[in-house]
Formats: sequence, structure tokens, C-alpha cells
Amino acid sequence: MTTRKSVGTYLLERLMKLGVRRIYGVPGDYNLEFLELIERTEGIAFIGNCNELNAAYAADGDARLSGISAVLTTYGVGDLSALSAVAGSYAEGVAVIMISGVPPQHAITQRALLHHTLADGNYENIMACYAQFTVAQARLLPQDAAGEIDRVLGAAWREKRPVYLQLPSDTCCVSVQVPVEQDVPAPCGSDPIQLQAAVANIMERLAKATQPVFLLDALVRRFDLRERVGELSRLLDIPFATLATGKGALCETSPNYLGIYGGKASAPELYERVRTADCIIGLGVRFVDATSGYFSYAFDPDAFINIQAFDTRCGMDTFLGVVVADLLDAIIATIKDRRDVHPSSVADAASGQVPVPAPLPVGQDVTPWGQPAFWARIQAFLRQGDVVLADNGTSLVALTHMRLPAECHFISQPVWAAIGYTLPALLGSLNASPDRRHLLFIGDGSFQMTAQELSSVLRAGHKPVIFLLNNRGYTIERMILGETAAYNDIANWDYAGLPGVMAQQDAALCLRVNSMPELEDALKQAQDPQRLVFIELGFGPMDGPVGISNFGGAVRHYDYGAFDGG
Amino acid sequence: MTTRKSVGTYLLERLMKLGVRRIYGVPGDYNLEFLELIERTEGIAFIGNCNELNAAYAADGDARLSGISAVLTTYGVGDLSALSAVAGSYAEGVAVIMISGVPPQHAITQRALLHHTLADGNYENIMACYAQFTVAQARLLPQDAAGEIDRVLGAAWREKRPVYLQLPSDTCCVSVQVPVEQDVPAPCGSDPIQLQAAVANIMERLAKATQPVFLLDALVRRFDLRERVGELSRLLDIPFATLATGKGALCETSPNYLGIYGGKASAPELYERVRTADCIIGLGVRFVDATSGYFSYAFDPDAFINIQAFDTRCGMDTFLGVVVADLLDAIIATIKDRRDVHPSSVADAASGQVPVPAPLPVGQDVTPWGQPAFWARIQAFLRQGDVVLADNGTSLVALTHMRLPAECHFISQPVWAAIGYTLPALLGSLNASPDRRHLLFIGDGSFQMTAQELSSVLRAGHKPVIFLLNNRGYTIERMILGETAAYNDIANWDYAGLPGVMAQQDAALCLRVNSMPELEDALKQAQDPQRLVFIELGFGPMDGPVGISNFGGAVRHYDYGAFDGG
Repeated sequence: MTTRKSVGTYLLERLMKLGVRRIYGVPGDYNLEFLELIERTEGIAFIGNCNELNAAYAADGDARLSGISAVLTTYGVGDLSALSAVAGSYAEGVAVIMISGVPPQHAITQRALLHHTLADGNYENIMACYAQFTVAQARLLPQDAAGEIDRVLGAAWREKRPVYLQLPSDTCCVSVQVPVEQDVPAPCGSDPIQLQAAVANIMERLAKATQPVFLLDALVRRFDLRERVGELSRLLDIPFATLATGKGALCETSPNYLGIYGGKASAPELYERVRTADCIIGLGVRFVDATSGYFSYAFDPDAFINIQAFDTRCGMDTFLGVVVADLLDAIIATIKDRRDVHPSSVADAASGQVPVPAPLPVGQDVTPWGQPAFWARIQAFLRQGDVVLADNGTSLVALTHMRLPAECHFISQPVWAAIGYTLPALLGSLNASPDRRHLLFIGDGSFQMTAQELSSVLRAGHKPVIFLLNNRGYTIERMILGETAAYNDIANWDYAGLPGVMAQQDAALCLRVNSMPELEDALKQAQDPQRLVFIELGFGPMDGPVGISNFGGAVRHYDYGAFDGG
Repeated sequence: MTTRKSVGTYLLERLMKLGVRRIYGVPGDYNLEFLELIERTEGIAFIGNCNELNAAYAADGDARLSGISAVLTTYGVGDLSALSAVAGSYAEGVAVIMISGVPPQHAITQRALLHHTLADGNYENIMACYAQFTVAQARLLPQDAAGEIDRVLGAAWREKRPVYLQLPSDTCCVSVQVPVEQDVPAPCGSDPIQLQAAVANIMERLAKATQPVFLLDALVRRFDLRERVGELSRLLDIPFATLATGKGALCETSPNYLGIYGGKASAPELYERVRTADCIIGLGVRFVDATSGYFSYAFDPDAFINIQAFDTRCGMDTFLGVVVADLLDAIIATIKDRRDVHPSSVADAASGQVPVPAPLPVGQDVTPWGQPAFWARIQAFLRQGDVVLADNGTSLVALTHMRLPAECHFISQPVWAAIGYTLPALLGSLNASPDRRHLLFIGDGSFQMTAQELSSVLRAGHKPVIFLLNNRGYTIERMILGETAAYNDIANWDYAGLPGVMAQQDAALCLRVNSMPELEDALKQAQDPQRLVFIELGFGPMDGPVGISNFGGAVRHYDYGAFDGG
């Protein structure tokens, strides 16, 4: 059964069916009709951003909590400005629908020389770029718009990665044949024989295991597997470690939590625990330089159950066409049937945990002011249900090794690692979940990258707590090379003065903190924020969390080899 | 004769030989060794920017005055963030050398999963994007680094367009065989037979012409042809018009200047002058939608001498391998030999000039406050030698049709048309020519795109005059569609308060202007600025220069066709 709808209407309906509630972006010549349509449509809103990079970061932040989001830009200038953020969504596994309002199809057909292009008649170059960083792409034309929309959105839905749609400006309102029934895309499902074989293989390994361990990565968030993995962990009573890229995959207050695993960069007990494990159940494990102590992991490959999104590998055996959710469901069902697979001797789950810093006595300046004391205090400030955003640099390093309270959500970008990501992402996560307390930790170098988007957070009336760590430059780079080099310095802003420029003076509570007592006072006011709280923290240029100085040398040696003296 | 130098050293030396004095960018893990090298090298400086998009805009602005500039980013995140700006340099014809510090070659060879990548072992995707928007690309490896550097830089030098170099972090300090003699690349030269034939054809046409006219475009700036074209115009005493994309190509105070040609969007006399011309000498003419009244130009194709960078077409005859500078030199030499080609009857050059608004009586509020009065007053404020930067939107529309005093330089981006380009470009043009007076005109929507780079202008101690036109949103889009729609509104900042947040309070003179008397007072203080002058101008949401409202309807119809009602 089919009916007729405009291309734009069908696209909006399909987006909403998948759960898209907000489209971030910037208006431009070629997307105004679609914007008009969004304005007229109930249940979906356009969120204007200061620029397109920030818009795509915001959509990513939204999708981290809501599951899926969208971006709308104008052709060329907007597409390319957003590209790095979309690549980030690909690297981290976030479903972002990137929509570009492109020149009218009549102009494309004629290869007309238009602005927002190279004025050479080439209309394929932008598509060629997006093909590198999205899992599906299409230019929507009346002859096959509905099918193409379903194909491309289906890919984002299935793979939880970004996709790219070009909507020619004159196509938006053209009516096309569309299906009457519109459900979410059917799951791709698993091959039953492969699934059964994988389950049998895994159950056999579990039954024999005496030292099993879970290794969790971003896949758990990406495919919303938290409940399944949690249940499995409880049923089996197996301890779990998380890669930095998968931080927060399971509740870190669990007695089964072993800490963050990163090869030799892990706590020594955890490194040993994994090295000696006789069964490692990996969920989406992907070892990246920065999160694996430069590939210093070590364990028995025959003991490794490598579960990925659509296939599983047990030692040398690969099971293709096995969807991770199906596999987990089947294992859970099997365990509930047969209780004999319970590992005979689970190691003491508490061993190997990353030591949690003891909270400092509050209200007294007992500790020298600096990042170690600051982060120790922040550990105690975190509370159940917080959304914690950690920008790359010292903030991410410190927070990765912190113990999150229950039901916290952790947002970072450890793989793509673009500094400045979290400030616009904060706008998105706030929109997705405005009633939770959001805490952003960001350095000054990162903040300057995307600083204007603070204005969108203020404009929306959100009430996050923003910790701006001002150490006057790129401290994480200083740790690698150029400790005192001018190129790692940046202009020193009066950061706490910025909210007053971007909104009414009383829209934000702005505080400057340079001592422990000032921090105590600020945290008191940030406990249950009634408006945006912006806390600028003054630190020295080489101040960082405990242990960070080792990190620089390792990076320097990997990147520059024999010349690592600079 | 060869000698040995490190890859990084050779690259820096070649850059300096071509005239690169400043490299813009952001430090990152993979470019620190090259940064160390820059710091140690006399004659070239690293200019840190707030983000990579802005860095590449700044390099473009620098190259507009200095001829060539460079950008340094780190892999992936930096490359893609800068891509839109580099595409802009391609579209407008600006020589920008984009250099990316990429992961160490040992990691690329092993396809290691590194941060700043998709962590899938693919190291070709960034290169694939840059191949779309640069005229040459290379990854520098010890086995052929010197040759590749020369090939790629030669392409930028020859074509005045961007190129892309990947410098693996572990390659920078490796010594390689390099030539001892290092001159700028030899010009590619012209085919003598084709050149002679083209000159003969053109001389014959000129001798017969009674109504000749020059049509000048961006090619004149791109290949630094101003002197040659000026001499030719004087020798022949032929009037000239300029496309908006070539504004400022020749001195607009010349009695031969006819104004800005844009098809039916031109002054009617100019449209007729071109339509009835019996010889049109076009220099790089490229008709783009926004600068041609939507392709509404009309003239006799047989009368058109279409001179482009490396070929010339006279009516139906094409002469390939003819370099524009050679052609102009040959024509000038021929004319000096034979004075008979002087057109017998040159039309009154003054006819068809765009009417210049009469300066308003200063110091009196005789005119209702608004953009028409503002721009009329600005016409009188411009003075000889100014560098004028016009951001897209109402500023570009208004300034395009203004008469520039002698020796002014006009910087805009009419083809790529990315809003926000000019603020970082201002940093570049100031660095290239710090002693000239720089005037930036930018709307609030554009400003928010790249606002953080104001801090780099302040940090450098520059003294431009920045006119911030605040009409609380995207006025140029409102003219097209959504006049009162929320999506065209943006947050209202206290713009004039921003310099005080980004630098010391007294680093800038900040003024708010909402009336003609306030404007007079502000202009008096901006006459010879001793520090940065930031003037925030309050305008209504639909306020624009004279004639802009016609523009919106034309765009709406072109982009949305039958549905242009919205």
C-alpha cells in the first residue's frame, strides 16, 4: 500500500519514527523550505547553532542520551564545516543523520556555477567526502526518494553510525509515492545456525572457565546493551573491566567492577587479572593507542571471546551474521535454563579495582591547590544520575579513572579526540535529558575551539555546571613536547565573564576559583543549580591529574621515535 | 647537485622561498616536532589560532595580500575542521599550503588503530577528501620527500590554489637528499605559436572594435595582474567593469571604471554597455549565480575574448597553453609597437557608472537611522589604501556596490560564501600588512560563526576597525524565506562587551551605535585607530542596504521553484 507525500514530509516522518526529536543546524539558502516544514511539524524541533561544526557536535551529544539525532546544514560550506564532527560520530559509534539542503536539482543537472560550490559544475565532491565518514549516503530525487530515505536511515538505525542525505532545495515539496505502513526498520536478525554455534561455543568456554572476565567497550552504549550485559554479569557473577572508550558501560559501583583496562596503563592488578584470565568476554573491544597504553595489552588469544556488532570470534572460530543483542539474549536464556555454567571459582571481584581517592575534608584548605586536589574533591561531588562530560586533555584523563556513581552517564570522545567537542555536545545532552544534572569539565584550549556554543546553552535556559580549567594553553601537548614553547600558549580570556556577554548578566552564576576554600564554596552553589553555573578554575601551565606526566613521554616516543628530544 | 636536509627543514625552506612568512594553525600530537622546527627557524612564524577552521581562513586572508600562506593542523580532527576553508581558497583562487602533521609512518604502515582516526586502519580517507579541494597532494616519505614537496608547492605557486601535504610525525627530522639550488618554480610558460596566434586574433579584434569593454574578475587578483591590466586599460583607453567576484581588480577611481557588472542586476546603462559591446575582453570571467543576476548576462559570444589562466578563447577559437601574464605582456608590447589598434571611438567611460551616494552632512541626524544611511556614510569614511573586508550577507551586498578609493584592497568570499570567513581572514590580512587601516564589516550571524578569533586579533595587538551589524539573526536568509521565522533568529550578545572578555579592558575601544550622531562620533574615533575599535551597530531585523529586498525573491524562485511560497 502506498500513498503520496512530499519528500520533506516523508523524511520528517521517518526521522520521528526512529526517535529523532531535534534537528540541529544553521539555516542557509538551500535548506529554508525544509526549515519551514520543520516549523510546521509537531513533535520535532529545529535547534539553531552558532556554526555547523557545533551543530553536529550537539547532535552527537543528544544522540548519546536519546539514541539518535539529526543535523541540517546548507550545501558545501555547511557540509564541510560539520564533517569533522560527523567523522567523530562515526569513530565513536553514534547515530547522527546529517541532512544537507543542496542546490536545486535543475541547477545540479545543468552543472550551473553556484555559490557554496567550487563554481566548476562539480556536484560530487561533497558526497565523495561524506562517503568516507558515513555508512550510507543518498541524494534525494523524486524518482526514488522514499526508498532511498528508508535505505539510508535504516543503515544509521542498524549500525548506530552517521549517514548523509542531500535534499535538493526544489525537491523538498515534491510529492512522491511512499509506503502507508511506516515502522522502524526491522532488525537485521541473526543466522540461526551461526547463532546457535556461537552460543554453544561460548557456553562451553564459560563452563570450563575458572578466571573469566568481561571487557566492555563502547559497543555497550552504541547498541544500548547495558541491561543485557548487566543481567549477564549478575547471572554469571563475573567481574568486569571497561576500556576507557567504553567508560560507564556498566554501573561502576558494582562490586564486580574492576576498573578501566588499558594494557600496562591499567592498575597492575587489573593488568594481571586480564593477562591470566582463562576466558575473556569482550564486548566490542577495540584497542586504540591512547586507551590501551599503546597496545600494551596482553592476554591469551585463545581465551578471547570477541563479540562485535554483527559477528563473534571465539579464539580462532568466527561466527558471522550474529547480532550482538541476539547473542546476549540467547546466552542469558541458556544460562537461565542450565545453571551448571556458573563459573566454579570467580576471582575476588574487588581485587584489581582502581583505587578511589578518599574524599578530602571539606571546607578546609588542607591540600595545596592544584589538579590532584581538585579531582579528588570532584570524585566526592559526583552523584547518582549525573551526566558527566569530559573534554579531551587533562579532564578526560582524570575523569576516566574516577569512579562514577550509579546511573551516571559519561560523555567523551576518546577515539576521534577532537578538543572542544563537549561544549556543543552539552547542549545536545541537556536537550535530550534536561532534568538531570549535567557537569562539563573542559580545558581553556578546548573551550576556545567551540566557545560560541555556550550562548546556545544559555539561550535554552539550561542549568549545567561548567568547570573551565584554565591553565593558559594546551597542557596535554606541553606534556608531549614544547613544555615552555609559545606555540602551546593561548590567549587568556576572562572566561567567567563570557556568560554575561552572551546572555543577561543574571542568566549564569559565574565563579572564579583559585583555592580549595573557593572550590568548596563554588561546589556548594553548584550542588543543585537553579541557573547555569560557570566555574573558572585557575591552574598552572603544567598542572594535571596524578600520573599524567608519564603519559607525555610515551606519546612522544611513539610519535617521534629517535627524534623524540624535539 | 644535492645535499642532505631533514624533510621538515627542506619543507620550511621551500615555503620561505615561495614567500610564506607565517604558518597558521593549532598544535596537536602529530605536528609538535614541526612546530619545534618552526620556532627555531628565522624568517617564518607560527601563528596559533583558536581552531583549525579559523586558522585556514586566516591563512587565506594573509595570502590575499601577501600572495601565499600556510596552515598547520594535526591529523583527522584538524584536517577536516579546516577543510571548508581550504575549499573556499580553491573556489576563490588563493594559494594556501595546507600541512597536516599525521601519525608516524610506522603506525600507518601497520594500520594501527590510533586516535584522530576512525580506528579502523584506514589512512586514506582524509587524503580522499583533500583531493577534492586541492590541486595537488602528497604524503611525505623519506624516499621521495624533496621531489614531492617541489611538485606540490609548485602546483600551488602555478595555479594559485590550495595544496595538501601530510607530514608523518616521525618523518619531520629524517634527512633526505635535496637539491642545492632552490629557486621559485619556473613559470610554466606559453606555447609560442599559440601565444602569437592569440595575440594576432585579439589585436585584429581590437583594431575593429568601436565599443570595446573590459570585464575583470578574480583572476586579476589571483595572478597579481593588476599592473598589467592597468597598463593595458590606459594604453587602450577602454572602459572596464568588474564582476562582484573581482571587485577591486583595478582602481575604482579611474574615469574608465564602469561599475560592477552582474547581468540584469547591474545598473541598466552598464547592462546595455556590455550587451552592445563589439569586443569584450574578459579576464577570468566566471559567472556565478549570486554575482550574475542568476545568469542574466547577455552579450555577443562572437565578441567575447575569454582570457583564462592558461588558455584564451576568442569567439570560437581556443588557444591552449597561453599563460595570461604572457598574453597580456605580448599584447602590451604589440600595442606599444603599433599604435593603430587604438579603438577609434571609445564610448564615454563615465556613462554607466554605478551612482555613488552623495556623502551625508556629517554631525547632524538628518537621515533616519538604518542601513541605507549607514552605508552612505561609510562610503565617505573609506579612504585611500584601506583594506576592506566584507562578510557575506548585507555587508557584502552593500560594499560591492560602493566605490573604493585608490589603492584599497577588498577581501570577500563571494563564491564559496561561507559566513564568518572575514573575522579570521582579518587576522591574516593584518599580519600581511599591519600598517594599513583595516575595516571589517560583519553581521551578527556571521560573527558568531568564528567569534573566538577576535581574541587572536587582540592578542596580536592589531588595530582594525570592526563594524558589527547586529540585526539579531540571518537577515539575508530572512529576505529569502522565513522573514519572521524563529529559525532565522540568533541569540543576542553584548558584542561590544566581548573584547573586554578576550583581552584587557583597555585593549579595544568598544562603542555602541544606534543613531547617526553616535555613528559620527564613532567614526571620528575610528579615523586613525590607536587600538582595536569595535563598533556594534543596532539595526532592525529586516534592515538592509538599498535594493536588497529584490534579491530575496530571485533567490527564492531559483532555489524553490513552484513552491517558493514556503
